[in-house]
Amino acid sequence: MIEESVVFWIGALIFALSSLMFTFLGNRNSSRRYLFNSHVFVSFITTISYCIMALGLATVTAESGDLIYWTRWLFYAGSCSILTFDIATIAKKPNEKKAEVAIFTTLTMFCGYLASIILTVDRWLFFGLSTAAYIGMLYSIFTKSSKDSSEISNIKWFILVTWSLFPLVWVLAPTGFGIITVDITASLYLALDIVTKIIFGIYMHTHHTLST
Amino acid sequence: MIEESVVFWIGALIFALSSLMFTFLGNRNSSRRYLFNSHVFVSFITTISYCIMALGLATVTAESGDLIYWTRWLFYAGSCSILTFDIATIAKKPNEKKAEVAIFTTLTMFCGYLASIILTVDRWLFFGLSTAAYIGMLYSIFTKSSKDSSEISNIKWFILVTWSLFPLVWVLAPTGFGIITVDITASLYLALDIVTKIIFGIYMHTHHTLST
Amino acid sequence: MIEESVVFWIGALIFALSSLMFTFLGNRNSSRRYLFNSHVFVSFITTISYCIMALGLATVTAESGDLIYWTRWLFYAGSCSILTFDIATIAKKPNEKKAEVAIFTTLTMFCGYLASIILTVDRWLFFGLSTAAYIGMLYSIFTKSSKDSSEISNIKWFILVTWSLFPLVWVLAPTGFGIITVDITASLYLALDIVTKIIFGIYMHTHHTLST
Repeated sequence: MIEESVVFWIGALIFALSSLMFTFLGNRNSSRRYLFNSHVFVSFITTISYCIMALGLATVTAESGDLIYWTRWLFYAGSCSILTFDIATIAKKPNEKKAEVAIFTTLTMFCGYLASIILTVDRWLFFGLSTAAYIGMLYSIFTKSSKDSSEISNIKWFILVTWSLFPLVWVLAPTGFGIITVDITASLYLALDIVTKIIFGIYMHTHHTLST
Repeated sequence: MIEESVVFWIGALIFALSSLMFTFLGNRNSSRRYLFNSHVFVSFITTISYCIMALGLATVTAESGDLIYWTRWLFYAGSCSILTFDIATIAKKPNEKKAEVAIFTTLTMFCGYLASIILTVDRWLFFGLSTAAYIGMLYSIFTKSSKDSSEISNIKWFILVTWSLFPLVWVLAPTGFGIITVDITASLYLALDIVTKIIFGIYMHTHHTLST
Repeated sequence: MIEESVVFWIGALIFALSSLMFTFLGNRNSSRRYLFNSHVFVSFITTISYCIMALGLATVTAESGDLIYWTRWLFYAGSCSILTFDIATIAKKPNEKKAEVAIFTTLTMFCGYLASIILTVDRWLFFGLSTAAYIGMLYSIFTKSSKDSSEISNIKWFILVTWSLFPLVWVLAPTGFGIITVDITASLYLALDIVTKIIFGIYMHTHHTLST
């Protein structure tokens, strides 16, 4: 447990700093000043999630003896639905589609939580339901809206490629087939979190200031 | 436990198919295409709920030895608040009233969850609070808005009659006085779920396509 | 446990009556009739919270032997985010800012819940995160919007002063340094709940009827 704990503390520190960074970016940037500063919440919720995992507060032990940090997925339900809601806003989707995208994201992560906390073969049922909700979310995001620019298209492909690596790690990790160890799992998720939540957030701040 | 498990698996299958059906109905129907496809979420959330009950993942045992599947009510908090929000939208309520209806529904189901998971006589206190929130929800839905058509009136009466059978089953089931058995309870809830979530959804798709 | 139980039952009764009062105030007052009646929900959610604490349904025992009623903070996540959303609405904030204020409130209370249920020194980490989210909420509320009247300014200062007493009680109570006893803690929280939720609600009903 000690090894992945270090990874989690590093994650907590990085996302705490990233919460502060997005707070200041949001305030300095006058054109986004009165807009919803989603990246602050995404980073802050991820900070709470990493603190809980670092302290080992809520885990289950797989048959292999590996610890499974299932709380991660409940926090993704919060942070990632804020993220996809914001992407749908930038893609100028109508309010109904924004809600659709956010609910699909919540259901994806909630089923991911069930798949993680259940240790028997039944977990694959919830992995399947999670995948179904994920496909629904991607479909809602990818459906062409009349005002789509090519830049929005880049964002969509970025989401498709990077977010799809999360279930891949899940399948390889002790939650799935147990091919990779707990600390490598933690490191891979951290790398993906940094790419999809911090680097993506910085990209959005620098490119979508005027267009939103 | 085996008997009601069969009922729950049938429910999971029916609602999985119904999720797919509403997905295709929503896409084919161009006039509702850009609208919020609430019935997909209602059926999908119900599918997750039935899978959890079928696997017997989270139950409490009443004094009578009967299993109580309390998770049902937490999933209703999600699915039914989406449903009443959609009904309020079709009834052309202002946004504040839509939120009111959805929050009352969430509170009704949340108190229903408390009433189900608590095994002592105290559960009737939460049954009372649930009933109070339910009356608030009905009152919010029934309050006349200026644009009400007679068809909206039919929907309101349908909701009043069919939804009020849920607490009736609750009172007769092991959660209340234990007059009916667990498998009959499961079957009655399934019948009510099909009427209020699938048949109602099909009716809404065929009748409210143009008017919304 | 018996002593604070009396305080909790009194709280449940007061907030049940206050739920009824705001229901009738909202209906009588025609100009607010079609508006979101937030104070009904705030009082009703608080009623559920007090019933759960009065019955002692979910507590942890601190090292000192004192009972910690951690559910309180989860219900605040619901009731207080409705309250700050309403304040942001009255302050005529844009929708994005309303969502920001409500999410900051939810995160403040959620971290408060974690700080309360965790009994080790680690709880102070979550107390710190809760404080950070609280500062974010206050900052979002206090940021000047173009249409601010002096009355809105009074409301803001009222929130700052009265809400900041909650973490002060938390620090003095068994959740923090254990300087005050469980029943005095319960009484102080009840007094604060009455001021911030009932008296504040009556003030809002009498002063902000026409301006909203």
